[in-house]
This record gives sequence, C-alpha cells and structure tokens, in this order.
Amino acid sequence: MKNGNADEKEPLRPMDAEQLRKYGHKMIDFIADYYKSIEQFPVLSQVQPDYLKDLLPNFAPDQPEKFQDILDDITKKIIPGVTHWQNPNFFGYFSASSSIAGFLGEILCSGLNVIGFNWLTSPASTELEIIVLDWLAKLLNLPDKFLSSGHGGGIIQGTASEAILVVLLAARDKILLRIGRNSMDKLVVYSSDQVHSFFKKACQIAGIHSENFRVLQTNASSGHGIDPRILDQAIHDDMDIGLIPFFLCATVGTTSSAAVDPLVEIGLITEENGMWFHVDAAYAGNACICSEYRHYLDGVEYADSFGINPYKWLLVNFDCSCLWVKDQRDLVNSLTTNPVYLENMIFRKNNFVDFKDMEIQIGRRFRSLKLWMVFRLYGVENLKEHIRKNIKLARQFEKLVRSDNRFEIVCPGMFSLVCFRLLPHNENDGGYELNSKLLDAVNSTGKLFFTHTIISDKYILRFAVGATLTEERHIIESWKVIQNQATLVSRKFTQQNKN
Amino acid sequence: MKNGNADEKEPLRPMDAEQLRKYGHKMIDFIADYYKSIEQFPVLSQVQPDYLKDLLPNFAPDQPEKFQDILDDITKKIIPGVTHWQNPNFFGYFSASSSIAGFLGEILCSGLNVIGFNWLTSPASTELEIIVLDWLAKLLNLPDKFLSSGHGGGIIQGTASEAILVVLLAARDKILLRIGRNSMDKLVVYSSDQVHSFFKKACQIAGIHSENFRVLQTNASSGHGIDPRILDQAIHDDMDIGLIPFFLCATVGTTSSAAVDPLVEIGLITEENGMWFHVDAAYAGNACICSEYRHYLDGVEYADSFGINPYKWLLVNFDCSCLWVKDQRDLVNSLTTNPVYLENMIFRKNNFVDFKDMEIQIGRRFRSLKLWMVFRLYGVENLKEHIRKNIKLARQFEKLVRSDNRFEIVCPGMFSLVCFRLLPHNENDGGYELNSKLLDAVNSTGKLFFTHTIISDKYILRFAVGATLTEERHIIESWKVIQNQATLVSRKFTQQNKN
Repeated sequence: MKNGNADEKEPLRPMDAEQLRKYGHKMIDFIADYYKSIEQFPVLSQVQPDYLKDLLPNFAPDQPEKFQDILDDITKKIIPGVTHWQNPNFFGYFSASSSIAGFLGEILCSGLNVIGFNWLTSPASTELEIIVLDWLAKLLNLPDKFLSSGHGGGIIQGTASEAILVVLLAARDKILLRIGRNSMDKLVVYSSDQVHSFFKKACQIAGIHSENFRVLQTNASSGHGIDPRILDQAIHDDMDIGLIPFFLCATVGTTSSAAVDPLVEIGLITEENGMWFHVDAAYAGNACICSEYRHYLDGVEYADSFGINPYKWLLVNFDCSCLWVKDQRDLVNSLTTNPVYLENMIFRKNNFVDFKDMEIQIGRRFRSLKLWMVFRLYGVENLKEHIRKNIKLARQFEKLVRSDNRFEIVCPGMFSLVCFRLLPHNENDGGYELNSKLLDAVNSTGKLFFTHTIISDKYILRFAVGATLTEERHIIESWKVIQNQATLVSRKFTQQNKN
Repeated sequence: MKNGNADEKEPLRPMDAEQLRKYGHKMIDFIADYYKSIEQFPVLSQVQPDYLKDLLPNFAPDQPEKFQDILDDITKKIIPGVTHWQNPNFFGYFSASSSIAGFLGEILCSGLNVIGFNWLTSPASTELEIIVLDWLAKLLNLPDKFLSSGHGGGIIQGTASEAILVVLLAARDKILLRIGRNSMDKLVVYSSDQVHSFFKKACQIAGIHSENFRVLQTNASSGHGIDPRILDQAIHDDMDIGLIPFFLCATVGTTSSAAVDPLVEIGLITEENGMWFHVDAAYAGNACICSEYRHYLDGVEYADSFGINPYKWLLVNFDCSCLWVKDQRDLVNSLTTNPVYLENMIFRKNNFVDFKDMEIQIGRRFRSLKLWMVFRLYGVENLKEHIRKNIKLARQFEKLVRSDNRFEIVCPGMFSLVCFRLLPHNENDGGYELNSKLLDAVNSTGKLFFTHTIISDKYILRFAVGATLTEERHIIESWKVIQNQATLVSRKFTQQNKN
C-alpha cells in the first residue's frame, strides 16, 4: 500500500500485526485519557445542528492521512459532538452501562471479526452464547423451560426492539398456521399505555392491523401497571366481535416510570386465552439478579418469551439484548433460511439451532464474549453490588428532592429511576412549560443530562441512575444544579407571567 | 468492588481510566499476537459439536477471576472453536474484510459507548454518518438523488438483511397507503432464483403472501442474471389476474456466482410499472469504486434503493451495511416512532431525520467511525488497489484451475470469486458426491476453507478471495492442497464405485 503516512517509516499494511499493536496501543491510550477527563466535557453535546459539515471535506481523501491527524480530529471535531453517555453525570433515558470487561470483550469480538451466523462459521460463537445465556437465566432464576437443555434457550439480539419483533413474528406465524392467514386482520395485540414505543412499530412491521392494537390505560392507583380486569375485559370484548387476541407485551420497568405489570395475574389471563405472553424487562430485569428484586419477575413462568438488556445495567457495552424463549422452534419456524450454500457436513451432523434462524439478520457478531468477560472479570457478587449501589443513589436523590418543597416526587421510586417535577403554580398545562424550561436550562449547563416524560398529562422529569462512574458526589452536585436552575427558571417564569 | 483479582494489587473499578489502559494494552497485545500466529490455526475450526459445554462451568462465577486466567481460557477454549475468517487462507462465503483502521474505529465506538438513536443523543454520530455515506456515494458515482442534499441519503444498517427488509417495508406501506390495506394479498415481489436467501425471509416478515413471491429462473446464457423478458412477462401475467407487482430485488454480485442483473433493462420495466426497485450489491458493489467496474451499476439511476456491505470488501470490520434511498421519507413513514420521552428542544429545532426511524431497531451504535477511519487511514487509492489486488488473485486462481484438466470453471469469473468443480465421471448427481467429498476433505485439513453452492443442479465449489491478509502464496499453496485432495478423493471414489 502507498504510504502517505508521514509519521511512519514503514508502508501501511491493513492487517499487519505490529502496526495493529502500535496503533492499538495509541487508541487505548486515547480512550483511557478520554475517561480520565470525561467529567470536563459538557454531558449533553452543545453543538448546533449541521456543525460537522463545515469541519470535514466533501470527499473522502485519495491518499492516506496521518494517524495522529485523525486522533486530533477526533478530539477537535468528533468529541464536541458527542453526548457523553459514560459521563458520571449522565442521568438521561436509561443509561448505557459500560465497563472495562465489556470494552475488552468488544475489542476481542472485533479483533477476531468472525461472522457466526451458523455453528460452523465459529462454533465458539454459537456455543458460548448458549452457555452464558444459561448462566444469566440461572442468575435470574428463570424457569427451567427457558434453559437450553430442552427446546428453550436464549439468544443475544442487538436491542429489545429486535427481541420484541422476533417474538411477535413467531407468535403471528404460529397462530396463522393454525387459523389460516386469511384471519390476519382479526389478530389483536395488547399492552399498557406505558409499553415501549417500539411495540407499535413492531406491530406495524408485522402487519398487525393498526385498529387491533389495544392500548390498556394505566393510572397511578395501580402504579401504572396493567389492571388485569381491564385486560380481561378487553380480551372478551374483542372475542365477542369475532377478533382473535393473540399477543400480550408486558413490561417490568417501563421507560417512563419503571412501572411493573403484574405478571402473575396477566399471565393467567394469557394462558387461559391461549395467547403469546412476552415480558420486556429490558432495564429493570437486570436488577432481578438480586434476590430482593426477583419478586418483580414472579409470573415469568407464564411467559413464552422474556428479555433483558445487559447493556442498560449489567456493565456490558452496547449492544446486547438477551432474549429467552420456551420453545425456539417457534422462532425458527418463522425466521429460518436454509439456502444450499450454507449447508455443510458438520452442520448436518449436529443438532444446533442456528441463531440466524431466530433473529432478523443473518450475519451476526460474537457478542457473547463481552457478557462472558463481564461475568468473569467482576463476578456475580460485584454485579449485584453495582445494581444495589445505583438503586441506593437513586433513593438518595429522591430524598433530596423531597427535602425541597418546591418539588414533588410524582411516581413511587422504582429501581434506579426517580420521577419528579417542579410544582407548577397552576396545573393548566400539567407543568409542561415550567418543567420543560427547567430541563432545558439544566441540560444547557452541560453539568448533567437528564430527560423527561409525560404520564397522565403531567410533564415529568426523569432522573435515571446507572452510568458506571456515578458516585454520591455526582448526585449531590447534580441536585444543586437543578435547584439553582429551578430558582432562576421560576423567577423568569413569574416575571414573564406578570408582564 | 471486591477484588478477587489476585494478580492485581488494586481493587477492580469497572471504568477506571488507568485499569482500562492497562487491561486494554494487554488485550491489544493479545490480538496482535493472534494475528502474528494466525496462519498456524486450522482455518475451519476442527472442534466437535458441544465441545465447549464440558470446558466451562455451569454457573457464572460469584467472585472476580484473574484477567490472565481469562486470556488463557480464550487461547485454550475459545480460539480452538473459532473459524478464522481473518486467516489469509479463508476463501469461504464472501470474506469479512477487516483492517487496523476498521478495528480502531470499533474500539473508539465501543470506548465512547454512546447510543445515537437521534441527533441529540450524539450529534456527531448522526452527522458523521450522513457525511461518510455521502463520501461513499460519490465514490460509487451514485446519482445525486442518493445524496443527503435533497430527500435522499444513506444510512448504516447492520447487514444487507436489515437493508432489504426496511426498503421492502417502506415499499409495502407506500403502496398500501395508496391502494388500501385490504389489497395486501395482491402484492407481488420479484427476484431471480439467485437472490440472497434473506429476501424470502424479508417477504415472510413483511407478510407478503408466499404464493406472491416470484422467483425468476436464470441460466448460464444470461450469466445467471435476470432475463428482462421473463420479468416483463411475469409482471404482465400477474397484472392480468388482478395482482399488483410492487417490488423487485435485483442483485449485483449474487451469493452463488457473483452474477449481475441487467439494471438498465429491468430498471426500465420497474419504472414503467411503478414498482419499487432495490439493488442489493452487498459484495460486488464495493468493487464499483474502481472505474473499470462501475459499469455494473449502470441503471442504478432507476433504483429507489441501493446497498453495499463495506464489511465484505472495503476493510471495514463487521458489521456495516450501507443503504441509500432516494427518498428517506418512505422509510420514515413506515418505521417512525416518536414517543414523548424522546422529544427535546434541540430535537424540535433541527430538521434531521432520526436514523432510528429508518431502521428496525431504535438503539444504534456509532458505526460511521470505522468507515471514516478506513477512508482516512488508507485513502481511496489504496482501497481501490486492495480491490484490484483481490480480483487479480482470483483470476490467478482461475488460471491454476484451468491448467488442471480434472477441473472445470463453471461460471465466468466475476469479481474476486471463482466457481469451479472437479469433473465428475458422470453427471447423475451433478457432481454432488465427488465435489462435496473434496470440499469436506480440503476443509478438514484446516489449511484453507472454502464453500460451495448449487447452480442449475450442479454442485459447485466457490473460492472467494477477500481476506485482508491473502497474498499470492496463499493462492498457490491452497491450490496445491485442493489438487492433492482431489487426487485422494478421486482415488477413493473410483475404488468405492468399483466395490
């Protein structure tokens, strides 16, 4: 290869071991230095839209550039446009927890760069995934039917979106096989009004009639969980007019307020009606490795499928969503492809289900490595401690909010999430204007980042603890920033309303 | 955190900068050493099914383990189960090309660990993706409509599977909006019999009636490309019985033989009939950055969407599939989700289309970094040289095959793929038994790995050049191994048929 790389004596070779070592070490140092100074960056990127267009050329370079120049550009041009999810003052959405072990697992995955779509293409990729998902299932005390010993087992999807989509497709095709595809328009799905926004998208992809998407209203009295009586009524109403209820998506730890649907009660209803029951525990499910939170999963024995996202809270770098099903054949029946060019002697001999037949895409990364490394480098006890520490910090933040009577806690504190708001002078707009101004003011300081939601027409501030580096001091400092901005925003607001 | 890590004096801290530096350097050294010795491993893993179960414990460890022990386990337990896609003697499927730059981009992506589902969550993630996909579109000389300046533009999907699925969904919902969803069962899709196996799966996911999946037969006379007359006839036959042709998936570089559909002729037909025209150039499209291969994309101006996989041939580590559409609104209309908790002041102000609304999943990695680093560290000229070198090596291999009259070249040599077979004594089984035995015998040596396909009832051996480290000597040595095994297999075969 031509060498335009003036800082190097030797020509570039795209996969030379010693060059990989040299550049790799430089990149590791770059990232270690990034973490050393991570608190100095504004948490929320403060750039303006289209900021990057003027900083980069319009065409890819013809000749190689110096590695140091690229690193300098990352510092000067890319980092300012990064919202620092790993900053300890990141409290938005749910966090993307990361760790050295997760990071090392990603490096190894990318270094080996295998595409393990079936057993043969890297047996370790298929087999390690089976093993670590069994480990995690046991940690969560999932029923044996979710283990790989029978027809069940786990699979790593990218995100909970894909997990929900594949089980919805499996459920759809399973029932259509029984009742005939002419009945497609009769299929009805159910979820609460707090379900992840992706569920509607999954239904749209799967071709579920938009009028057959039942959104069950929740309210504060049931902690924003599904009311089993409302579910039961809705199912019977639909059956009465000839529709076919076939799928319920329940949530343990909703996006808005970390609410938990009552799995036992609604699981009994789905069982009675022969429906597929999926439990999406993307965020809060991770906490259920601790015995004191496991009760939130009681009823998962009624579920056909269950998922958590270890990238949200178990120190695994993004992406990694673990999905378990009781019968993998349901996924395979819906998603298999077996072209002749993937057949092989060894493939024919073994009985492995190919993971490509249980997911949307065919090519797949060796993601189990990072889960395996996290378990081994930290150990289960430390993972539990990490969860408990986050929840303790959240309760500490909640206490701070309660100590300031300008604020209120809106929902009961669940897991590591705190839902609160600045009390509005009147409820005409549900506190929207006041609290959205507060949120923007705080996030514009760059000192912390958090996000909002709307529940029961109230504009609510969400403070989600979960970034790996977050300590007590970050909670205390962040609360001070929020208090100060609340003073400023309230003052402006009062003046504005006077004028 | 508790420290069970006896080789370290300090307790483990999951995201400590200095520990990340120390462990990170060790992992880089591990991978550099792997590449130094990569030719010593059997290319195809030689383990037996379920090999790993007995090597790993049944439960995740409670306490932390030593990092060195984990590295030792990778060497002893994981590596033997790896099929070495990066070994220079890997000639299977299409290769997963990788490079130091791609690897560094992955490290950076994982180090920052941001989830850039909309602009706000890391502006650089959205904006760099727009810019590098424009760079690549210009390199491929795509029509301006595929650039981001108007309604078009590119997006990075994980694999071509997702790319095909999202455009199929967009096309489906676009036509259903016009003709009403009751016409769902009238929708017909078209492709050749050489289309990627995923296309059928995409249709199944999208709910296209399996009887409305038209597989157009190809043959050697048209180089296994679609015959426009057959397409035209099929479309008119369907319209005559009241069906609605709406989607054609064409391929530039089919999986079996790298065949190319005639884009101009079939593009004119789709235009005339108001159909969505997708061009899947996952593998061969990469070669079209070289002017001498660009003519294979002539006709892409008729396409609504077009995709290539830089991870297959442009030195970008897996995964990375680039999809361009002329009108992003078609994707957004089909795949948008805008829950209230993702709204934001800055989000409202800018006009960016969120990439989450043009793909299946919502969470997304910062994958443009690796594409950007590959362009910059190598430069376009070197990327072209890499493509040309691979194609030259493939033609060299083809020459070797032709020089041995026991073999025949089955399809004309296209790009870096060679399709050949050992001539059978009779054609009763299309050479299946003889050639499958040869393939298994060669792959069992561990010295190289290649794969097969079946075209026109013939069992064909596929030799795909593309691993980054492959040099002339690997081609020559591999051919010797194939020749030797052919001698052994032919001898056994003759003896066996005598007995």
